[in-house]
Amino acid sequence: MTRSASAFTSIHGSDPAPDFSVEALNKLLDPDNRDTRKRFKKFMVDNHDLFVPRFDISLKEERDRAFQRLRAIGREGLVSVLDFENNPLNIFAAHECIGMADAGSATKMTVHFNLFGGTLIKLGTERHRHLVPAIDRLDVTGCFGLTELGYGNNAIEMETTATWDPATSEFVINSPSPKSQKYWISNGAVHASYCIVFAQLRIGGKEEGVHAFLVPIRDPATLKVLPGVTIRDMGRKQELDGVDNALLAFHNVRIPREGLLNRHSEVEADGSFNSKISSRRGRFIRVADQLLSGRLCIAAMTLSGAKLSLKIAIRYAATRMAVGPDGRSDAPILSYQLQQRAIIPLLARTYALALGMNRVKNIWANPAADSADVVREVCVIKPLVTWHAERTGSICRERCGGQGYLKASRIASTIGFAHAGITAEGDNSVLMQKVAKELLAGIQERKVILPRGAAATESSDLEDPHVLRDIIRAWSAKAAKDLADNLAAKVGKQGRPLFDVWMHDESETIQRVSRAYGERLCMDELVGQIVKTNDAGTRNILTKIARVHGLAVIERELGWLVTNGLIPPKLGATVEGRLSADVAILAPDAIPLVDAFDIPEGLLYAPIAIDWERYNEYDNHGELVTAKL
Amino acid sequence: MTRSASAFTSIHGSDPAPDFSVEALNKLLDPDNRDTRKRFKKFMVDNHDLFVPRFDISLKEERDRAFQRLRAIGREGLVSVLDFENNPLNIFAAHECIGMADAGSATKMTVHFNLFGGTLIKLGTERHRHLVPAIDRLDVTGCFGLTELGYGNNAIEMETTATWDPATSEFVINSPSPKSQKYWISNGAVHASYCIVFAQLRIGGKEEGVHAFLVPIRDPATLKVLPGVTIRDMGRKQELDGVDNALLAFHNVRIPREGLLNRHSEVEADGSFNSKISSRRGRFIRVADQLLSGRLCIAAMTLSGAKLSLKIAIRYAATRMAVGPDGRSDAPILSYQLQQRAIIPLLARTYALALGMNRVKNIWANPAADSADVVREVCVIKPLVTWHAERTGSICRERCGGQGYLKASRIASTIGFAHAGITAEGDNSVLMQKVAKELLAGIQERKVILPRGAAATESSDLEDPHVLRDIIRAWSAKAAKDLADNLAAKVGKQGRPLFDVWMHDESETIQRVSRAYGERLCMDELVGQIVKTNDAGTRNILTKIARVHGLAVIERELGWLVTNGLIPPKLGATVEGRLSADVAILAPDAIPLVDAFDIPEGLLYAPIAIDWERYNEYDNHGELVTAKL
Repeated sequence: MTRSASAFTSIHGSDPAPDFSVEALNKLLDPDNRDTRKRFKKFMVDNHDLFVPRFDISLKEERDRAFQRLRAIGREGLVSVLDFENNPLNIFAAHECIGMADAGSATKMTVHFNLFGGTLIKLGTERHRHLVPAIDRLDVTGCFGLTELGYGNNAIEMETTATWDPATSEFVINSPSPKSQKYWISNGAVHASYCIVFAQLRIGGKEEGVHAFLVPIRDPATLKVLPGVTIRDMGRKQELDGVDNALLAFHNVRIPREGLLNRHSEVEADGSFNSKISSRRGRFIRVADQLLSGRLCIAAMTLSGAKLSLKIAIRYAATRMAVGPDGRSDAPILSYQLQQRAIIPLLARTYALALGMNRVKNIWANPAADSADVVREVCVIKPLVTWHAERTGSICRERCGGQGYLKASRIASTIGFAHAGITAEGDNSVLMQKVAKELLAGIQERKVILPRGAAATESSDLEDPHVLRDIIRAWSAKAAKDLADNLAAKVGKQGRPLFDVWMHDESETIQRVSRAYGERLCMDELVGQIVKTNDAGTRNILTKIARVHGLAVIERELGWLVTNGLIPPKLGATVEGRLSADVAILAPDAIPLVDAFDIPEGLLYAPIAIDWERYNEYDNHGELVTAKL
Repeated sequence: MTRSASAFTSIHGSDPAPDFSVEALNKLLDPDNRDTRKRFKKFMVDNHDLFVPRFDISLKEERDRAFQRLRAIGREGLVSVLDFENNPLNIFAAHECIGMADAGSATKMTVHFNLFGGTLIKLGTERHRHLVPAIDRLDVTGCFGLTELGYGNNAIEMETTATWDPATSEFVINSPSPKSQKYWISNGAVHASYCIVFAQLRIGGKEEGVHAFLVPIRDPATLKVLPGVTIRDMGRKQELDGVDNALLAFHNVRIPREGLLNRHSEVEADGSFNSKISSRRGRFIRVADQLLSGRLCIAAMTLSGAKLSLKIAIRYAATRMAVGPDGRSDAPILSYQLQQRAIIPLLARTYALALGMNRVKNIWANPAADSADVVREVCVIKPLVTWHAERTGSICRERCGGQGYLKASRIASTIGFAHAGITAEGDNSVLMQKVAKELLAGIQERKVILPRGAAATESSDLEDPHVLRDIIRAWSAKAAKDLADNLAAKVGKQGRPLFDVWMHDESETIQRVSRAYGERLCMDELVGQIVKTNDAGTRNILTKIARVHGLAVIERELGWLVTNGLIPPKLGATVEGRLSADVAILAPDAIPLVDAFDIPEGLLYAPIAIDWERYNEYDNHGELVTAKL
């Protein structure tokens, strides 16, 4: 740390001490559960043998290590299924912590604690709660059987059935076709002894819609698969091989009446059915509710992947020397504009998205009367964060050259970690369609009023974060209005089917509406924090971050903004230069800015972030387990 | 194939037979060595057991399989080191063929045949040629020791020394420091018995600059490492684990006088040194010359990765059903605008880059008097192609959802394959700096005249590929002029050091100059083929491709084009809609367009491109080796 900071700052001739408080900034990023986060990270650092990343190990060993890590965390009491009721923000804090250490364990966590455990306590009742202590300690592991091979984007059409047998008062779970196999089921191939199975409930020939059932699939003691259950291992993936994914099929598997998660619907012992929710669609939406917090979990853990990549890439760039003014290798690559221009906007954006995430986590935990806001904001933040994590991993990898290509450098893994998040718990682009749809509905019902913002004029001051925010607001408002106008013209006036216009005509507009909506939320939050803070140092650094981030968003969207009259061409021509200047201003603070992510030294591991010369002085076979750093 | 084509075309109500010749298009893409390509592909298909991708295997097995594949190809006589002299285009054709099957073998090929073998025959003389038959048959395997740990981007500063010992008439090869270890040496960890080592030649205390030496590092029969040589395995990487990368260090290893590759410089038995090249810098540039063809090899093989990803993703999208107009799962996702807008421009761009590649391969094989053109064009096409392969792999992965995440689907591997190419044989962005520098020099010396193109007017017809080409030309010309003007003002007038302006001020402009230059080359080539062809079907489909590709480039650069006066804002506002319309026009031809890549059915393997339902009907553990498709 000292070494890299001094190497970098000596080039810039500035004092190594930043003019802002790293701790104050970290409190902004991680405002909740600070003691637990500290304990969580210390636990992972202290248990080096368990948490050190391994690479050249078998698939079985990789999965076992991911599981052992998660179980150790559960047994340490760092997260509990009951957090959903007592301290919901700790669920996301736990995902943020483990996301710094192991993407595989993080993914197993989100399936076990959120999808499985969370669904159990939310859709189940007292009769299911006896399992909670065992779930928290990973004495039993769970999985979540929603998606079917044939119905990835249309789960309500699933084929799996749960047929009520009045003779025995049991449900019979059955997979009628190959396409009805539960697909991609994390924890399914090795560790899970229970699966929450979603199935079409049939009682006396009547279809009652999709319901959730607690189905034992393995003997918890021996992990032997139970009769009637077929489990097929899905093998290796782009990344996350610590996660054991499987196909699950059920051949007339009988479960007792109490296996129905009966918070909203119940089948009595006499076979009579009653439900608090009348429509089958409503029932489906309710049982799939845990996907919503699941999206926040995914965003939380992948954002940590982005932070880790940036910390590693920036520390490396500060110590890696390349050609300087007189041809010798004496300039750190972080001093190059090329490097800064690629990495610093990602750093600023990470701050903007982290603050946006905090906003969304809070409204999820404390929803107002109308929960539509929560759904929209959750469904837009997951795409923005996971896409950002992908870009961050990819660009940091590239800017670290060959060093970034080694598994030991840990950056490349962020790419595959992010890719999993991009299409899990809802394909990002499909979620964006949902956001646009619900946003337009909200506007039409006058439940949502988008801030109007303000188009720029030739004299607008692009150094003022409020001006940047106003342009982004105006972009969001105009994009939404354009889409509403287009739909009114094509569907309302011309009478074309909505499906046709939506799916074949307005795709770019729809994605823009949601993208702008999400960017506006995050920029609002960032500028809001500048206004709110009482600390001059924090205000100063947030202002620098907001300039880089706001200008980077505007630069990316410049074509649309200029051709739609929100930025005059003459002003637009200055955006690139201003962004470059602001990047150069922020760059000398890059090291303290990644320090504020509070990733402990003992969790970094990547030799390129510590001492890559020393790492290459002995035989290591690309592993870190014996690394002398 | 029939199944997917009919599923797609039935939705569009069009005849499955395209109105162009797939074979004619393939002849445009693969004009040279057509018989050898056919033989090469057939050989890989026929040797299914060797070429079927494997996933859950050990690192050792993965490397062995990559080597066995390459050796089988060498022994089949499908490529030879002597092709560099007799049929240079076959070198690239071979990389294109193997790039469809295995990125690991392809990378081992490029190091063994191009860097090692190519350097041996070009820098060596008759006294080294006895090795050629053994190299062709992989009886001996070679590696290329240029890069050192501390000098990745500044190899001329390398530390390894070759000191002449007059007492024994030998060279003594030595690695004086950890930073001087040869780094990332492909084939080094397991298979290579020779290394071409680049070292600072010292004779009687005088430094003669970097020269290349043929150094035995392993016993070819036993593969036992020879005394004085230290080899350290670099372990697992983002991808390409079939390639055995190593650090190499030499401890006073003695080689005979004849080990010097003496085409340009010679040390006589009496220790007298003579060289055809006077400057040390000139000697370095000459010995590193094989990196140039290496860039074409990398572009060739990664372009095949992009083609493979597109073929798989498009075939899957044509058979994967999701929500249709009435809520049932009966619409192929390829019919969605979202899917088309993401994938079809990548398909069009693949054609543009493939034609650009053919142009560059040809001028490399048949250089005009001024070889500066060759260097510039090679150094711009490798970045464009490898960046494109990364985007193609990443977007195709995303648009295939979870299915794209399985190793068995083969798409995700393209991301890591491309990443290796992005920073190998010169970091893409650094090469782009070189291109800009040499382009400006060429313009200043009046050796290069960039086509002026034409800015668009409000009435320009964006459906005319010539108009699109002219905008891209105007972009390229103005970008170059801007950079020259900026340098003249800041360096010439203000007197700032060139290094400072170049590295700290003009980074975005520099990258744009080279990007525009490369895009212009490819667009020129694409439009040139439209003009040249006598076949109406070919002309028609190339025109559709050129519209999509040209508009996609313009959409990406729209902010700059509009704010710099090359496109009026009003016309600019129509680009998105026009591109969407042209994408929808090209989309129904997607299947025949990927068929024209001529990837044999027997090399596809990916179940999602063949019959993913059937693949999920039995236990496969994510492997393809027993796949019933």
